[in-house]
Amino acid sequence: MSIVDIKNYMQSVGQQARTASRLVAKADTAAKNQALAAMAHAIRRDEALLLTANAEDLDHARAKGLETSMIDRLTLTSKSIATMAEGLLQIAALADPVGEISGLNYRPSGIQVGKMRVPLGVIGIIYEARPNVTADAAGLCLKAGNAAILRGGSEAIHSNRAIAACVQEGLRVAGLPETAVQVIETTDRAAVGELVTMKDFVDVIVPRGGKGLIERIASEARVPVIKHLDGVCHVYIDDQADIDKAIKIADHAKTHRYGTCNTMETLLVHQAVASKILPDLCRIYFDKGVELRGDEAARCIVAQMHAATEQDWYQEYLAPVLNIRIVDGLDQAIDHITQYGSQHTDAIVTENYSRARRFLREVDSSSVMVNTTTRFADGFEYGLGAEIGISTDKLHARGPVGLEGLTSQKYIVLGDGQLRK
Amino acid sequence: MSIVDIKNYMQSVGQQARTASRLVAKADTAAKNQALAAMAHAIRRDEALLLTANAEDLDHARAKGLETSMIDRLTLTSKSIATMAEGLLQIAALADPVGEISGLNYRPSGIQVGKMRVPLGVIGIIYEARPNVTADAAGLCLKAGNAAILRGGSEAIHSNRAIAACVQEGLRVAGLPETAVQVIETTDRAAVGELVTMKDFVDVIVPRGGKGLIERIASEARVPVIKHLDGVCHVYIDDQADIDKAIKIADHAKTHRYGTCNTMETLLVHQAVASKILPDLCRIYFDKGVELRGDEAARCIVAQMHAATEQDWYQEYLAPVLNIRIVDGLDQAIDHITQYGSQHTDAIVTENYSRARRFLREVDSSSVMVNTTTRFADGFEYGLGAEIGISTDKLHARGPVGLEGLTSQKYIVLGDGQLRK
Repeated sequence: MSIVDIKNYMQSVGQQARTASRLVAKADTAAKNQALAAMAHAIRRDEALLLTANAEDLDHARAKGLETSMIDRLTLTSKSIATMAEGLLQIAALADPVGEISGLNYRPSGIQVGKMRVPLGVIGIIYEARPNVTADAAGLCLKAGNAAILRGGSEAIHSNRAIAACVQEGLRVAGLPETAVQVIETTDRAAVGELVTMKDFVDVIVPRGGKGLIERIASEARVPVIKHLDGVCHVYIDDQADIDKAIKIADHAKTHRYGTCNTMETLLVHQAVASKILPDLCRIYFDKGVELRGDEAARCIVAQMHAATEQDWYQEYLAPVLNIRIVDGLDQAIDHITQYGSQHTDAIVTENYSRARRFLREVDSSSVMVNTTTRFADGFEYGLGAEIGISTDKLHARGPVGLEGLTSQKYIVLGDGQLRK
Repeated sequence: MSIVDIKNYMQSVGQQARTASRLVAKADTAAKNQALAAMAHAIRRDEALLLTANAEDLDHARAKGLETSMIDRLTLTSKSIATMAEGLLQIAALADPVGEISGLNYRPSGIQVGKMRVPLGVIGIIYEARPNVTADAAGLCLKAGNAAILRGGSEAIHSNRAIAACVQEGLRVAGLPETAVQVIETTDRAAVGELVTMKDFVDVIVPRGGKGLIERIASEARVPVIKHLDGVCHVYIDDQADIDKAIKIADHAKTHRYGTCNTMETLLVHQAVASKILPDLCRIYFDKGVELRGDEAARCIVAQMHAATEQDWYQEYLAPVLNIRIVDGLDQAIDHITQYGSQHTDAIVTENYSRARRFLREVDSSSVMVNTTTRFADGFEYGLGAEIGISTDKLHARGPVGLEGLTSQKYIVLGDGQLRK
């Protein structure tokens, strides 16, 4: 398509999404749940079709020599298809956030003022290889009463189209407009540029992917973006920590999974307990093949550590590599996190009440934890039911974003003819 | 100052604000309230000084031939100075939003997950002539634990500096950093361009002023903006309205004050009651000097009306001018509001339960009302204590923005050594 064609195509997608958004905003809970169940049914029934479409994407990906990790993310299996369908049923089981009224109180003037939760309108989702995002994002957006415009990676186009057909069948079965979920048909990059600047038709953009993708979108966008940048997560072991808990948490936060955004990248240890903790803990890390990079004090205790460079403290490794620094107390730990962290998830291990309270108040991250692993920062673990991403922004949504993050609140005012003086 | 000097100056203001924001974020409630009381005291004590500084601004304004309405907004009086001080004491009396914990529930894994309300960081406020915004905005930002950078209009620079001196005295008395509230010293427009793009130092911009100012700032900004665009507010009188209530509400919503954003600009009347309501109601409007612009059906009932043009339905008059349209029912009323409204404030007058419920759910405006006047859309009337503006955005804050809109929420997780499976 030419640039002009892409512009026209995207404008028409946007217009249809805006129209559909008004219908799904007032759709009742039963219709939305019926659509979700029908989508799940279609996905299960069409397993063979989805696997065939996915095989086509995989052939192209291998021919283009894509990385193994990319191919992994792109691959659908019977199991991942079942999980996708199950996810839609789980979303159907969540309470409908739309129309929820809170804080409806009488004011001295006699009017009653409260808030009603409402859909945002049209959500644009831009993602990379994972085809399951097509179903997850469509389900979450619909349940929150929004229309969705989905732009998946070009490498997953056949898989995404096949999943979108199931999603649209679900909408049709429930009498909802099929245009409530649209998959961008062109793989041209210019379509993204158009999507993130159509202020009249798109209310918010949720990019899911690497930091590069998200930074590029944020810099181009004229529509608000819910960003998920990097996760440089810390665990601070205080000198009043329970040593056994501390070792288990520090082990888990790094080694449970290496490639996730809530994995610890830097361990901070109070100087008074460093020599008690580090020898045992580092043995565990070495046994699991984790490369350690420490400051001078840490390397005095465990000599096999590499020296950490200034740049290392800012790194999101997403790999079996860990920084270790010895600090002289809570203040230095908080200062380190403030300077080098990414405001994603940080934890303290301590039995000291006042320090736990200070850490919770003063560390300015989307999740702040006491005596547990950073790996818990997750929509399912937090009870949101599902998440569309994790926000490292401060405005609107922070941390795991579920149905609530895909809605807004308006004021409602009930009167009996009251007038303002 | 040269462009380079302005850039350096603004960067240094930003850096100081960021540093100060960390200190006010952890300041305790007593210190913030002490600062607010000391600011109020200084403002009252320095009344004569403030009036002298204001006189200087007024001399320049008159010499430059500024409009009367602008001069009105610029003028300080003994009464407005007392109101400013009183406003700061009212903010001190509000509950501290910072650190408020909500929804702290145990999860199946054993961790306890909740949310803690936290400051946004650094707020940039850009405003036009009103010097009282300097005190109001400083007080609200401080109470919410934020640092503020204030950029008032050049015509109010002497008044703003004098008020800022009182504000900074208050901060000093309470042992808080004076740089928690900074007034931009240069009146150069380039300073605004710098302020709205300093992503490292500014977390959100709140512009207060006309639509032109806000649109210009929103288009330049790389920092999120809480926008207040126009208020094209509607009242819809249903055929099941109480006629007496309807006339009083429609009168009040237009004539209580003409120049406010929550004033009704278009009245929609159900065709079945139009001939019963309009003759009496229009007599009231004509007696008060309101110009009426109607559609054909309305002009058949009240012949003295002008004909409304298509463009008129989009107008925010802020003046004694009102559009009147006859509609055939609730659907057409909602469609009109969706097409021509600005999603600010809209009201229905009806005794019908189902129509009231539908109007509340389906009208997508920041305030939606039943049987009362649009003029109630206001932070004080809603019980927010004070407002920094009214947001016509959907993300983050919608409607009147008080202390809560100047904060965010982070997740907190309390554990006892739990690990994720």
